[in-house]
Amino acid sequence: MRVPAVGFDIFNRMHRSLTFTALSGLPEMTRGADLAAHIDAALKRQELALASSDVLIVAQKIVSKIEGRMIDLASVSPGSEARRLAALTGKDPRLVEVILQESEAVVRAAPKVLIVRHRLGFVMANAGVDRSNLAADAAEAAVLLLPRDPEASASGLRRELQRRCGVSVGVIVSDSFGRPFRRGVLNVALGAAGLVALRDRRGEPDRRGRRLEVTEVAVADAVAAAAGLVMGEAAESVPVVLARGLDLSGPEQPARALLRPRTEDLFQ
Amino acid sequence: MRVPAVGFDIFNRMHRSLTFTALSGLPEMTRGADLAAHIDAALKRQELALASSDVLIVAQKIVSKIEGRMIDLASVSPGSEARRLAALTGKDPRLVEVILQESEAVVRAAPKVLIVRHRLGFVMANAGVDRSNLAADAAEAAVLLLPRDPEASASGLRRELQRRCGVSVGVIVSDSFGRPFRRGVLNVALGAAGLVALRDRRGEPDRRGRRLEVTEVAVADAVAAAAGLVMGEAAESVPVVLARGLDLSGPEQPARALLRPRTEDLFQ
Repeated sequence: MRVPAVGFDIFNRMHRSLTFTALSGLPEMTRGADLAAHIDAALKRQELALASSDVLIVAQKIVSKIEGRMIDLASVSPGSEARRLAALTGKDPRLVEVILQESEAVVRAAPKVLIVRHRLGFVMANAGVDRSNLAADAAEAAVLLLPRDPEASASGLRRELQRRCGVSVGVIVSDSFGRPFRRGVLNVALGAAGLVALRDRRGEPDRRGRRLEVTEVAVADAVAAAAGLVMGEAAESVPVVLARGLDLSGPEQPARALLRPRTEDLFQ
Repeated sequence: MRVPAVGFDIFNRMHRSLTFTALSGLPEMTRGADLAAHIDAALKRQELALASSDVLIVAQKIVSKIEGRMIDLASVSPGSEARRLAALTGKDPRLVEVILQESEAVVRAAPKVLIVRHRLGFVMANAGVDRSNLAADAAEAAVLLLPRDPEASASGLRRELQRRCGVSVGVIVSDSFGRPFRRGVLNVALGAAGLVALRDRRGEPDRRGRRLEVTEVAVADAVAAAAGLVMGEAAESVPVVLARGLDLSGPEQPARALLRPRTEDLFQ
């Protein structure tokens, strides 16, 4: 078997395969739940033991639930900007108020559409504020926000799993995003710990010795995208996916490395 | 194990896992090469037999090479628009001429940056025209264009594999793209055959019976993104990846279903 002469051998050389496995039977998560314990139990039920090159991809929704990021719209008073954008988009003014509080700028507002730059830097619909998939006992007008600091959520779970299982795995907190130019949502990484979220390949030559034109690979987003296929969207019973086969070596990069500074954006 | 009550059960219920495996030892592809035969031989060397739910992800570069999509810049005379954009971007005017001939519009031109709408609808850097990774015996000024019709390339390979192996697999022709708002490239689907490239989930309820807010999932792009991790970028020896575990049922959708019509783009 031929292997590339230089770098980026992120798979084991014998098989070079990458597997994404759903963790089954996780319960509905509630505020303060011990996610590492639930993951540990699910792994044991599936007779899986964590290995140090594993990555766990966790749906943002369960992280937010555990962190208590739920707001009842009944407690929200929309301001004038929220009322204006609600009229334009056809959305609930209280929901728009929550979205604005989570955002630093409105990127696009149109009927049914409200795309913002989240205070964490993500350009996304509705600042990630979601009304679907809440537990049956949640208030009818409850909404869920993104975790306050998804990188910290990922690091915290990584630490807990290390403590419980004795293995340092990578962790990605993931959500599905729409995209400019292309239809359909794709999962991306909101937070990451213990892996190279963005791999910088500057200076690596191609097979001919030329400098590579592509210099950065969105590793954590690619891993999240594949995990999104395993999670599905409605299937809240599959909020955690185990990725096996990645090489986590290299300088750790958090998910915020994937955010392109506004001033650098080439497509605008 | 709990399974979602409704739809999108795209994985087998026992394990729900999705595996991406590199096909190793493929030779350098040349014009007219029999890709199906090379894939068949590689599968046999790895003791893999195709199954009907498999998807093969093929790097655009080898498809273009096989289809003879190479141009020697020595034969290209840049026009005035190409010369103007070459001065602005710092690129070879002959390269810019080829890019313009492949494009229907320039989206962004700046130093080192030329983003266009390819005549096939892709918004991408340099219309996918690539100078790297060509064979050692290619002309120094040779460049490679995208396949003329990547959907047809995918369908053709699917047919050839069906004829040779007796199994109808899905095929994706993939290339790496930069993206607005986020750093790092991600592989996307340029062409697809035999799968649901864009899954429309409108009308599927969530667990609480609400209509899903997210209605379309970019399945082929997610599969391509994961395959991109296995391919790497410099590793031309891994231009084909086998994805196993997807459900290909549902109405077939080509990769062009993933293109958002310019008039619909919500982020602009």
